[in-house]
Amino acid sequence: MNFVAQALNLNPLAAKRLEERNILRKAIIPHDFFSDVIDAFKLDKKFGEFEEGTVIARTTNGLEVVRGYPKIRRALTLFPTLKRHFKRDVVIEEKMNGYNARIVYFGKNIYAITRRGFFCPYTTEKAREMINESFFKDHPSLMLCCEVVGSESPFVVKDVYGKPIDFYAFDIREKKTNRAMPIEFKEKASEEYGFNIAPILEVCDKKVAHLRCREIVEKLGGEGREGIVVKDPRMEIPPIKYTASQSNASDLNYAFRFFNDYAKDFMLSRIVREGFQSFEFNESEAELEERAKRLGMAILKPMVESISKVAGGEKVTEDHKLRFKSREVLELFKLQLKKMGVEAEFSEPYFEDGYHVLEFSRVMVSTTDKISHLLKGNLW
Amino acid sequence: MNFVAQALNLNPLAAKRLEERNILRKAIIPHDFFSDVIDAFKLDKKFGEFEEGTVIARTTNGLEVVRGYPKIRRALTLFPTLKRHFKRDVVIEEKMNGYNARIVYFGKNIYAITRRGFFCPYTTEKAREMINESFFKDHPSLMLCCEVVGSESPFVVKDVYGKPIDFYAFDIREKKTNRAMPIEFKEKASEEYGFNIAPILEVCDKKVAHLRCREIVEKLGGEGREGIVVKDPRMEIPPIKYTASQSNASDLNYAFRFFNDYAKDFMLSRIVREGFQSFEFNESEAELEERAKRLGMAILKPMVESISKVAGGEKVTEDHKLRFKSREVLELFKLQLKKMGVEAEFSEPYFEDGYHVLEFSRVMVSTTDKISHLLKGNLW
Repeated sequence: MNFVAQALNLNPLAAKRLEERNILRKAIIPHDFFSDVIDAFKLDKKFGEFEEGTVIARTTNGLEVVRGYPKIRRALTLFPTLKRHFKRDVVIEEKMNGYNARIVYFGKNIYAITRRGFFCPYTTEKAREMINESFFKDHPSLMLCCEVVGSESPFVVKDVYGKPIDFYAFDIREKKTNRAMPIEFKEKASEEYGFNIAPILEVCDKKVAHLRCREIVEKLGGEGREGIVVKDPRMEIPPIKYTASQSNASDLNYAFRFFNDYAKDFMLSRIVREGFQSFEFNESEAELEERAKRLGMAILKPMVESISKVAGGEKVTEDHKLRFKSREVLELFKLQLKKMGVEAEFSEPYFEDGYHVLEFSRVMVSTTDKISHLLKGNLW
Repeated sequence: MNFVAQALNLNPLAAKRLEERNILRKAIIPHDFFSDVIDAFKLDKKFGEFEEGTVIARTTNGLEVVRGYPKIRRALTLFPTLKRHFKRDVVIEEKMNGYNARIVYFGKNIYAITRRGFFCPYTTEKAREMINESFFKDHPSLMLCCEVVGSESPFVVKDVYGKPIDFYAFDIREKKTNRAMPIEFKEKASEEYGFNIAPILEVCDKKVAHLRCREIVEKLGGEGREGIVVKDPRMEIPPIKYTASQSNASDLNYAFRFFNDYAKDFMLSRIVREGFQSFEFNESEAELEERAKRLGMAILKPMVESISKVAGGEKVTEDHKLRFKSREVLELFKLQLKKMGVEAEFSEPYFEDGYHVLEFSRVMVSTTDKISHLLKGNLW
């Protein structure tokens, strides 16, 4: 614990107390695969200037602090929000829909850390396969903040990005300070080191940004993609996100399938977004009805499906299929999921086309139990 | 406070502590109109066996305890819930959509107490006008548990029940014990003393109740009415409620108009009910779409309307119009609303057709402020 105290500028007793209060937790399962990391902790809550998900690691190269990825705030209406928030030009990037991973280099290897601060074996194996480590050798103080997307995702399964699993860097930041590099730096690094970045869709004056954003978001929505993040070219002003109606609907579809496992805030925030978007887009009665039907179906259909499933004796689950190069990493990933508090039923792994395949169903226990309880005739 | 301690079987210090913790609050504004009540307190939380809204009053006739109206639990699916819950026959009554008032007789007058335990001047004046006090003279230990419905309601404005304001007794209970009288007693008393009761729609065997309830609820829904309460004829088993889809939609329409003032639970519970009803009614794709559109419109439309209203410089309000026989009672009611924590803008009262008319707008401060804040370009 002494290295954590040192990194956070605390006395060892105060660090100990953070651990007792469960704000500081182990971030890694010790394993040869993670051989450059001697020990690591993560912050489960914002603490002082350190974001939730900040990782403090003792590595073979010394002490490392990897700051948590900061929350990106949201515009409920594009106008006048963008105009008010930015300086002059803005960069409009696609917001990819996957899970957030910070890619870092410790000792002699790449590591992938989840949003909440866990070292993920699966993501780490893929990152080592797909990301060129020379970037980190040239820039040892930086991390790649990536969205990991695809159908072979342990967290957010999406089938619109082509490959089964892929990394898109959306920010390059200093590990220790969280300072974001300018967008130009990110573009050049992407070319030089050959990693993907989230598509840059437009650079324009902030005064017309709301118009361009609307066009872009409507087009992305139609393609099943999530939305946009609007940024200051120098990254000196915090970015702002905005999502397509179809993506709100898709989130709701997901959340209402598991309606008792999901936070009420998750659902209601997405519903309220639809209200503001419909207002801002100044919709006709027909367009409003179209949106209402999409919204209603996104809410109702998954609920009915889940109820039917439980009525038929099944559990409500979310199904995943992942491929690993190493059987050991596969086993490590199973342990890691348990550590993250995920309730899952695993298939027996099998070997196929050079990969160890793991299928698992995440059981939505609360939703399953609630439906089952009610269908037996119990009262609300 | 000593009379409260006596009524609740507490020592005076314990009663004092209840008041300090804000569990026990004043229930009445002293006034000639309430001349039979010397002092009265209400419970703001369930306390021991005493329900939230229980009133303890020192009256000219002595100590009175009026138990709070108990929560009626809800079936999410009619089958097998009704079959499991009841003994043999069930009585299906219409659930009226208004506000709950307990009508009691203290000293020489009728009093109306709201669900939360306030003596309501408006409701009391109407009750004295519309309910025959001879019932209470013959049955001094009983109260009428009424739904107060109509377009001239200070709380729930509904225009489907014919008269501008009306009382429908749904239960007759012992004030002090909350024991409910059998339904037959209620029917006879209604005939003898001439007060309305909530319509009794059907008496049937519990084994077929789910089928009859579905038919009834679909018919009621089509007429803009709320739903049903299913009861044991002897009232020895707690009743169960169940509502029409149109009523869920109407609740949502109301709640999303004021989306930042309403509890998330209020909204989500009504959404989840739609899922279970759609499942139980085994709907076709077309019926599901119809329901989804109703649901989506009930959510989206009021939000867009509220946002437009605030964008146009107005506040989000709920408007009421009430008529009083006495100008003094009108003023007393204004005081009472303030005591209940209702933020309202009042018109100057005027005299029309023998009544003092009060118009007021309940301002939904939180929703108005939230929308206004966001429309200025602030981030979520």
